[in-house]
Amino acid sequence: MIIVMKADLPPESPDLKQVLALAESYPGITTQVHRIQGATRSLTEVYLVGPTGVVPEAPFAEFECVEKVVRITQRFRSIGRHDGGLEAVGFEYNGVHISQDTFHVFPGLCAVDNRENVEKVFALLKRHGIVTTRAGAYKPRTSPYDFQGHGSSCLPFVFDLAGKYGIKIIAMEVTHESHIDEIRKALQESGNATGVMLQIGTRNAQNFELLKHVGQQTDLPVLFKRGMGVTLEESLNACEYIASGGNRRIVFCLRGVKTHLADPHRNFVDFAHVPVVKRLTRLPVCVDPSHSVGRRSAGPEGLLDIFHVTAQGVITGANLVLIDVHPKPESALCDGPQALLLEELPHFLEDVAISRRAYEERRKRASAPAAATA
Amino acid sequence: MIIVMKADLPPESPDLKQVLALAESYPGITTQVHRIQGATRSLTEVYLVGPTGVVPEAPFAEFECVEKVVRITQRFRSIGRHDGGLEAVGFEYNGVHISQDTFHVFPGLCAVDNRENVEKVFALLKRHGIVTTRAGAYKPRTSPYDFQGHGSSCLPFVFDLAGKYGIKIIAMEVTHESHIDEIRKALQESGNATGVMLQIGTRNAQNFELLKHVGQQTDLPVLFKRGMGVTLEESLNACEYIASGGNRRIVFCLRGVKTHLADPHRNFVDFAHVPVVKRLTRLPVCVDPSHSVGRRSAGPEGLLDIFHVTAQGVITGANLVLIDVHPKPESALCDGPQALLLEELPHFLEDVAISRRAYEERRKRASAPAAATA
Amino acid sequence: MIIVMKADLPPESPDLKQVLALAESYPGITTQVHRIQGATRSLTEVYLVGPTGVVPEAPFAEFECVEKVVRITQRFRSIGRHDGGLEAVGFEYNGVHISQDTFHVFPGLCAVDNRENVEKVFALLKRHGIVTTRAGAYKPRTSPYDFQGHGSSCLPFVFDLAGKYGIKIIAMEVTHESHIDEIRKALQESGNATGVMLQIGTRNAQNFELLKHVGQQTDLPVLFKRGMGVTLEESLNACEYIASGGNRRIVFCLRGVKTHLADPHRNFVDFAHVPVVKRLTRLPVCVDPSHSVGRRSAGPEGLLDIFHVTAQGVITGANLVLIDVHPKPESALCDGPQALLLEELPHFLEDVAISRRAYEERRKRASAPAAATA
Amino acid sequence: MIIVMKADLPPESPDLKQVLALAESYPGITTQVHRIQGATRSLTEVYLVGPTGVVPEAPFAEFECVEKVVRITQRFRSIGRHDGGLEAVGFEYNGVHISQDTFHVFPGLCAVDNRENVEKVFALLKRHGIVTTRAGAYKPRTSPYDFQGHGSSCLPFVFDLAGKYGIKIIAMEVTHESHIDEIRKALQESGNATGVMLQIGTRNAQNFELLKHVGQQTDLPVLFKRGMGVTLEESLNACEYIASGGNRRIVFCLRGVKTHLADPHRNFVDFAHVPVVKRLTRLPVCVDPSHSVGRRSAGPEGLLDIFHVTAQGVITGANLVLIDVHPKPESALCDGPQALLLEELPHFLEDVAISRRAYEERRKRASAPAAATA
Repeated sequence: MIIVMKADLPPESPDLKQVLALAESYPGITTQVHRIQGATRSLTEVYLVGPTGVVPEAPFAEFECVEKVVRITQRFRSIGRHDGGLEAVGFEYNGVHISQDTFHVFPGLCAVDNRENVEKVFALLKRHGIVTTRAGAYKPRTSPYDFQGHGSSCLPFVFDLAGKYGIKIIAMEVTHESHIDEIRKALQESGNATGVMLQIGTRNAQNFELLKHVGQQTDLPVLFKRGMGVTLEESLNACEYIASGGNRRIVFCLRGVKTHLADPHRNFVDFAHVPVVKRLTRLPVCVDPSHSVGRRSAGPEGLLDIFHVTAQGVITGANLVLIDVHPKPESALCDGPQALLLEELPHFLEDVAISRRAYEERRKRASAPAAATA
Repeated sequence: MIIVMKADLPPESPDLKQVLALAESYPGITTQVHRIQGATRSLTEVYLVGPTGVVPEAPFAEFECVEKVVRITQRFRSIGRHDGGLEAVGFEYNGVHISQDTFHVFPGLCAVDNRENVEKVFALLKRHGIVTTRAGAYKPRTSPYDFQGHGSSCLPFVFDLAGKYGIKIIAMEVTHESHIDEIRKALQESGNATGVMLQIGTRNAQNFELLKHVGQQTDLPVLFKRGMGVTLEESLNACEYIASGGNRRIVFCLRGVKTHLADPHRNFVDFAHVPVVKRLTRLPVCVDPSHSVGRRSAGPEGLLDIFHVTAQGVITGANLVLIDVHPKPESALCDGPQALLLEELPHFLEDVAISRRAYEERRKRASAPAAATA
Repeated sequence: MIIVMKADLPPESPDLKQVLALAESYPGITTQVHRIQGATRSLTEVYLVGPTGVVPEAPFAEFECVEKVVRITQRFRSIGRHDGGLEAVGFEYNGVHISQDTFHVFPGLCAVDNRENVEKVFALLKRHGIVTTRAGAYKPRTSPYDFQGHGSSCLPFVFDLAGKYGIKIIAMEVTHESHIDEIRKALQESGNATGVMLQIGTRNAQNFELLKHVGQQTDLPVLFKRGMGVTLEESLNACEYIASGGNRRIVFCLRGVKTHLADPHRNFVDFAHVPVVKRLTRLPVCVDPSHSVGRRSAGPEGLLDIFHVTAQGVITGANLVLIDVHPKPESALCDGPQALLLEELPHFLEDVAISRRAYEERRKRASAPAAATA
Repeated sequence: MIIVMKADLPPESPDLKQVLALAESYPGITTQVHRIQGATRSLTEVYLVGPTGVVPEAPFAEFECVEKVVRITQRFRSIGRHDGGLEAVGFEYNGVHISQDTFHVFPGLCAVDNRENVEKVFALLKRHGIVTTRAGAYKPRTSPYDFQGHGSSCLPFVFDLAGKYGIKIIAMEVTHESHIDEIRKALQESGNATGVMLQIGTRNAQNFELLKHVGQQTDLPVLFKRGMGVTLEESLNACEYIASGGNRRIVFCLRGVKTHLADPHRNFVDFAHVPVVKRLTRLPVCVDPSHSVGRRSAGPEGLLDIFHVTAQGVITGANLVLIDVHPKPESALCDGPQALLLEELPHFLEDVAISRRAYEERRKRASAPAAATA
């Protein structure tokens, strides 16, 4: 059971204390208070844990400070919307607000190769007013004989440059809990020049021990990539491992699924699930067109397939877009064939903006009174 | 080898005859002349059949009336673009022009049940200025004990009503060659009140005998639906069976593929292949959001998933949209759960228009000089 | 409702007439009598069609001549076992008995190329006492530009040679109803030198019009190949189209399914479904190792993968085995890479015999009293 | 490059030292010596690491003590057979020899629930002379709210009971490196009463950090389960992560793959890949029929599908069989529906023995001179 308090309730509100006291007066019930800082207001939710089946709703609903009481279902207990009972308020990290309503592009290097290339990319982002990026230091590769990423050794210069060019969030894959310690240490040594969103890759989507560990790092948000060969439901259950550990700042990322039917694309683009994830859960949704398409083919208009599938994600409400860029894709150490050239980024951003405007127009029209239409 | 003649060349042009004579002077070479009536001009292509490997290009290119000479590759011989060598000029049928540049919505009944419902739908289309629809008379169903469609018995009233309400094209599935005879007879008896586009369903996507037969019906265009469990390449090869028979008025329709990874959608939406089909072939591309999604769930904005995936198809350049509507979906004899209500159609059309405008803006921007962007 | 009569009841039995009269005395009920000639006895089943829900069982069960009364479920109405209520008695064709208990190997040419090769194969079969084969005259191919089979032109010499070498059944794919007429005519012209089992290929597994047509050819048995991209349930439902048309002499053939997970095999071997089909339906089960594996790789023992997957089918009770052989695989016009050499057939047959003996031992042990085992 | 020494070469052989010295005399080349204790002899292999392209073979082949020199290909560098160049000698652990020639059944509890059930199972195994089992202490579950296994707390009684009943190897899944420390500690505290084979589950098949860690535990063998949604090639590459770390005592386990085409089985049985893995690599192959089938349905002979698919694995040469048993499946905390009853185990073992004998007969026949067959 979740008791949603009215917006902007102060943490020290005596009303809140009364609600907690009442809840804990029921046998076996304990409480957890979650405060969520949204863009324009703060939200407080009280979670009742234990045998809530016998706890009545009415006594709580009568409080002046309570907005509503939501009985949660077993399915997606922590991340779910529970049949629309809960809003998707999102979260703020390092000054950037991310929710099911916001929109950010994360252009960046799939794998960090050298300082020069990182600087070229970050400088370009600054020119375009972008404060969010991706940068891979730890790369899980199919074969142990492939380049595995520079690991912690590249973190100092990546974070320094991020600070220099005003980058606020770097999405960075981790494949072992020690990577998080290394990242936190390097962030600290950089004077917290930037922020990191921990990325869980598709190969670790059911590495539950890593998910539990990430679930305890409540200072860092998480970008969770859908598992390749598992259902959407199983991937959302995996997110529950993170959320039930305490870390609710999770973004769900669609990146295509593996099947021969995807051909000639590398993976089968699954962005039709953007509205599904937004309906079932409170999580903001990211799309990763680079890994989905995996190649630079273009349609007859001259638009790359990567542009096209991005448009498909954005026009249906995707909140984040990861996009691989590289100054010299042909010399990239990993996934070069799917990276945009730096000079293609401006066109990409314009193209994305068209799709985002179309989404906003669609959303506005959807909520308009339908009086004139029948 | 294909010799593309300059636009608007008269069929009786003496130049054309000279080109044909020259071609046939090479040993073993025969010719086929294809005239394609586009929206603004007519196009003539001369196909050289036989051992063209030894036929030189230069003597043809020198003719005043020849625009270009294209060597065709083995892959997608009849429908292919041959590395961009051929334009996708499309075709005209019953006054409606369909190509990779045009856009039409085909709202209609998945299965015709009675005259009253057909009239309700056609009247609604007329109010919205729509002259294209779908109507199922022959329904292939998983079980022989399910409703199989009214067959030829419903054709007279469907065609009469089509004439009454100004419908120009009805997309109608056929599963046996005799259905085509029945359709042609009923059309004639209706005084050709309307036109029919023969639809090949996903279950018959590799029914090559039916494809060959349809390939000979050069008076009727064909809507070919991708096979469920086969690759895109195999589906395009199946279209070659139609085209190599002589009927080149083919529309390729994406309708989702079957895999457990689609869940909770009925099929895995494959509209990321819209630009792929347009790049590889000259075929206009249709999307079928109703059969892809298969249910009426809505995202948090209040927009049905069916609207969302339609937007994904349209913003990437889909040329046709099939969409199931029904006056009373709960009483539909087939696929009711995926049909829009009649009163939802206006909102659907507005939503589609937003996506189409966005596509047109994207396309315009793509072809604009990129000077200012780097 | 099905009334199973005691074995070897004469067709003209007055008892049977009484049963029929009683059945038809219920409102709206009609009857169909099916006689099945098994290896050692004949079986008679009376099908009650119509509103059987209100027909009681007791009055029928009381007849001396009635063995049992089985209420059929909706699922797999004609081919089902109805929770074990019905035995799988199988059928006899041209002197060969085929059931869930029998075992036959069908070695043969995937595609007939010339008389010489057909004769080589049939002569080899005769030396091994084999009277069942496969021979492809009509070949559905992915591309219209591939060899499509010799069609009706090869039937005369195939049937003549079959007669000469004592072949009783040829499994032969048909892709259009006209092929059946051609086959029947050629059989007649050969003086019915042999018999044909009509094969429905995987690409036509949901070509319901062809299935209905084949369902009416009650003189010829049918070999139905599972559809590539559809579930087992959907494929069994497709068999219902054949059976509900009247032709119950159906063999269900597993031939692998298409997925990238099959690699390095051509298709994903699905022979784990052998016991499933035998449990759910009355149909004998065939396996097609050649099309499943699609290549000639061998394991470290020197046994081809084709031998191995055959063993997997046979040890779990497969009743038929289709196996491609060719005198010169490298010159075969279709699927050469998967054909056994003629000189490999003897070893194959010995290998198969080991697996069949193991299956029989397993089955015997299963039905033995389990007293000593706990 | 691998230099295979003649069998039973003593580790201190001066000849070996000469070979090493010669190898290291080439620029940039270092050596690794691997000794493999087989059932009847020991094998020594010298691996040359570095730029071996310029190292000639002849000088090594001339040594008396050298059996052969094998150039290794990039593919499956550590585990591969390199086109048959290397034998699959297997390994010995805690007195049990496991190789591509041996055969062992591992019946056991999917998840350890209590001491009583563990004792019942181990006592049964002892009565049947079985010294190998499975026992799950750490269970990765789709949802965080499902039973996650008793973890380290059950290890003491599991290991004590193993010692009491003569169990030599317990296959036990680990999902975090700390589990290995816990296992090793508990083994030590039990006086090394038994041995443990570390199991990597399908969800961690591409958890490369865990694989690398397991690769360093050279005292414990590893059972690697194929990944669910990835190709066989990708799963074999994942094994390379283990082997390249130094641990070459790896068993590859097939356990079915996830696709809707598997229905009504839980997973699609992939045991047709048994001979493929044995051909491509030196790894012994295990099959897991319980997780593949996932239910207790039986064929018409009264044999469970689990028995049938086991037979399919064994008759094609599987070396290990994992099989879930439980005293009371209906009260099992995990995967009860797929467990055999204890009283079914004797029949299962007899059934398996039939299949194994059939495999041995097939193998013997394969290697016999084929003189009489053509």
